[in-house]
Amino acid sequence: MTDTPRRPRAETPKGFRDLFGAEVTARAAMLGRIAAVYRMWGFEPLETSAVETVEALGKFLPDVDRPNEGVFAWREEDDWLALRYDLTAPLARVFAQHRARLPNPYRRFAMGPVWRNEKPGPGRFRQFTQCDADTVGTASPAADAEIVAVLCEALEAAGVARGDYVVKLNSRKVLNGVLEVAGLLDPEDASRFAAERGVALRAIDKLDRLGTEGVAALLGAGRRDESGDFTRGAGLSADQAAPILAFVETGRLVAEGREVRAAVGRGEDLPMGPGGYVGAVDPNGTALKALGDLVAGSATGREGVAELRAIAGLLEAQGVGEDRVHVDAATVRGLGYYTGAVFEAELTFETTGEDGRPRRFGSVAGGGRYDDLVRRFTGESVPATGVSIGVDRLLAALSARGAGPRAEPGPVVVTVMDRDRVGEAMALAAELRAEGLRAEAYLGNAKGFGAQMRYADRRGASFAVIEGSDERARGVVQLKDLVAGKAAAEGASLERWRDRPAQVEVARGDLVKRLKALLG
Amino acid sequence: MTDTPRRPRAETPKGFRDLFGAEVTARAAMLGRIAAVYRMWGFEPLETSAVETVEALGKFLPDVDRPNEGVFAWREEDDWLALRYDLTAPLARVFAQHRARLPNPYRRFAMGPVWRNEKPGPGRFRQFTQCDADTVGTASPAADAEIVAVLCEALEAAGVARGDYVVKLNSRKVLNGVLEVAGLLDPEDASRFAAERGVALRAIDKLDRLGTEGVAALLGAGRRDESGDFTRGAGLSADQAAPILAFVETGRLVAEGREVRAAVGRGEDLPMGPGGYVGAVDPNGTALKALGDLVAGSATGREGVAELRAIAGLLEAQGVGEDRVHVDAATVRGLGYYTGAVFEAELTFETTGEDGRPRRFGSVAGGGRYDDLVRRFTGESVPATGVSIGVDRLLAALSARGAGPRAEPGPVVVTVMDRDRVGEAMALAAELRAEGLRAEAYLGNAKGFGAQMRYADRRGASFAVIEGSDERARGVVQLKDLVAGKAAAEGASLERWRDRPAQVEVARGDLVKRLKALLG
Repeated sequence: MTDTPRRPRAETPKGFRDLFGAEVTARAAMLGRIAAVYRMWGFEPLETSAVETVEALGKFLPDVDRPNEGVFAWREEDDWLALRYDLTAPLARVFAQHRARLPNPYRRFAMGPVWRNEKPGPGRFRQFTQCDADTVGTASPAADAEIVAVLCEALEAAGVARGDYVVKLNSRKVLNGVLEVAGLLDPEDASRFAAERGVALRAIDKLDRLGTEGVAALLGAGRRDESGDFTRGAGLSADQAAPILAFVETGRLVAEGREVRAAVGRGEDLPMGPGGYVGAVDPNGTALKALGDLVAGSATGREGVAELRAIAGLLEAQGVGEDRVHVDAATVRGLGYYTGAVFEAELTFETTGEDGRPRRFGSVAGGGRYDDLVRRFTGESVPATGVSIGVDRLLAALSARGAGPRAEPGPVVVTVMDRDRVGEAMALAAELRAEGLRAEAYLGNAKGFGAQMRYADRRGASFAVIEGSDERARGVVQLKDLVAGKAAAEGASLERWRDRPAQVEVARGDLVKRLKALLG
Repeated sequence: MTDTPRRPRAETPKGFRDLFGAEVTARAAMLGRIAAVYRMWGFEPLETSAVETVEALGKFLPDVDRPNEGVFAWREEDDWLALRYDLTAPLARVFAQHRARLPNPYRRFAMGPVWRNEKPGPGRFRQFTQCDADTVGTASPAADAEIVAVLCEALEAAGVARGDYVVKLNSRKVLNGVLEVAGLLDPEDASRFAAERGVALRAIDKLDRLGTEGVAALLGAGRRDESGDFTRGAGLSADQAAPILAFVETGRLVAEGREVRAAVGRGEDLPMGPGGYVGAVDPNGTALKALGDLVAGSATGREGVAELRAIAGLLEAQGVGEDRVHVDAATVRGLGYYTGAVFEAELTFETTGEDGRPRRFGSVAGGGRYDDLVRRFTGESVPATGVSIGVDRLLAALSARGAGPRAEPGPVVVTVMDRDRVGEAMALAAELRAEGLRAEAYLGNAKGFGAQMRYADRRGASFAVIEGSDERARGVVQLKDLVAGKAAAEGASLERWRDRPAQVEVARGDLVKRLKALLG
């Protein structure tokens, strides 16, 4: 080796990151709390491999040389392998592979990293952690209701207070019913009107931003925005657009009704929206009634409303009421492979972003019924339903609210004043550990006291133990209180200083007792 | 979509696997116990991304189109990305990237999956779990000693009893000293004699299988095995081979001495090897003395022996004696990127393999000092030392010994005899959970009692709760003891049956109390 190669860059790849100390601990603790809830509800742990064949993951075109964007994939002999992009696709594969020996229904929870080959952005990473619970093998709305209920309990166990989140509940079937009634979906041939349907769905999804009028324009000829740009619409007739607009309006009116209800609950003056008090008394019931009327002409739609009604009823029976679960017809996003009920947990509190502006984190979990994923493998339809909690997003939200990971105190650091006596410092640290105190001897190169104190400080240590030759001769140690020392340096009051002096001499035999008292 | 694509295979890719239920729980528990030890010793958690740039991982040739075998890698724009193959290479990258803000020494632990693109085999997977502790930033042998000591404590916390493992300790420097003395390593130019050195190292590594004579033949002209196949040797002269053979013989004699010592300890008759009692009194001291004499002519070798002596002394000072740590000159394997002390934890117990033959698991952890990994990034030498525990292998070994994961009892299953009353069954399950009992309502499609019992059985449930309309009217529930029921079906004695009848009627209000008593 005569020529030196270029030095590699010490960087994570774009969109990836490292977690340190308290960040790791906080995430593990959150996963542990959610897993404990899933477990209590009778879900069994499952840990699939991170790598799957691309064909098992699905979603990819078989006739292109390189699989679609969206996953990290590589060729291996005749196969393409890829990192899993969620925990649901592997579950479908596992159920198909092992169904002969698995209980039916199969209830499992899973947690771990998933990978998306997407453009990274601020707070948007290409590896993130999901924590899922799913029930495979039953079409019963009771299973959907259970998943929603366990989601609520899991969020609360993870640290989201009741009232700080809401689970929005909708159904793919209801939406399809509306599209049928509007003449945009032919139950006999789903391939018809696909383009118009796409435009209409995107229009519905923009309700929050554009209001009913904007959505109406996009359902018809199109919409010109303030900058003068024109977006082509779905080209629906007024008759076709009417049920969709009624659907959108239903969602809006019920949402307003909820706000009225909440305001009354808080004893506030009533906000007077144009919709008045629709749904203020029984928002879920009102929404279900309105949706039922709207989709009366569609068998699929009626089925969807009946299922939502059953789910809402079973949730009420378990004490999960409309303060936590909202039937919300406007929840269109992320319907993906879902075939029935869909739901999404949204955080309702605002935090302050790094730019000082209010920030909403929005969705932190989502799920629903997907009855066709296992069929890909087996040819038989296997009904399934489940939820995925985005743990990193949830941690970020709680963190932004000041409920994030707190650095745990560092270990007690035993200083080494005489390099030949490092063994004694190590033995002292072992003695502290045997008493349940986190402790280490300083093993670095610095001989000076100041450098070792700076190390202890950077480690977040509360205490340093100093045993020089003088102390050893006298049978004592110096105990340095780094927190008090820092406070003193930063101008803490004399009283505080007196209560907790930054350094005390302790008899060697009393060290453990004294430290325990100080740390406890 | 008119033509149906071929069904995907429901299979993990070759060399990957899924973990179910108790396997997941057992691994998580073991990781938790090891992490708790690392944490107590003052190591901080670090979780790096699974994906690294190939250049950061290192070990790859810059001038080939596709990176070497051994990793899973794929191209992304101008970079090659890869799955990490261990947790040490990412640590070197992290330290180089963040060294300005990290404490020095930086002590971290990490756990998680790593991936190797190797040919899979029985018990050999391409994704496995490592659990590492490392200290970066100090050349002190105290850091090596600490890593060996924490390894011992971690293994014991993971369930390996003292006496069931040994940590073999050696030094790359001692080995290099021997090679120098043998004229196979020029300290001024490491590129000389590389080929001969390779043959010699492989010969030493075969001591267990070929004995001293076989090694001698391979160091000289070569060796013809029983089948008549000839393996070419390193071509060393007798003078060159002598120190290497003496080195090998040292290791063998001390190992024999250890056996004598152990036999005496057990009160057995002494096994009489040709080497007699060398090292039976103080095996580590004997080995260090012999190695010191052997490498007296090499500065590197002397340094290595002095370091080993310091490490062994510091371990003794912490109570980690020669019953757990063996200075073992014959440990050559896996020196890889190590520059100083190396160690390897070996399980000493035998288990019975699936073929009924005795099986040794051998190495379950390894580590050592690697002073050059960070230099790749920064140009500055940063001394480091650490250990990696192969958690999957350790679990497999404990499992083969009957100390593996035990299936935890399944949840209490509340049957649903009347589909319209599923809400009540769910509420009952919720009531049990609120009392800390793991419980679920049966949400499957089967209406029959037998099918629901088979489900509960497959779930590993201890109890099923049955509340039909008759029971509801009378304010009672049936409590079916599935374990007792199974025992009865399998012909348990009448006494047992009487003590624990397979089904009892319990007042609805007493259900929780009764279940708690039965499960507790």
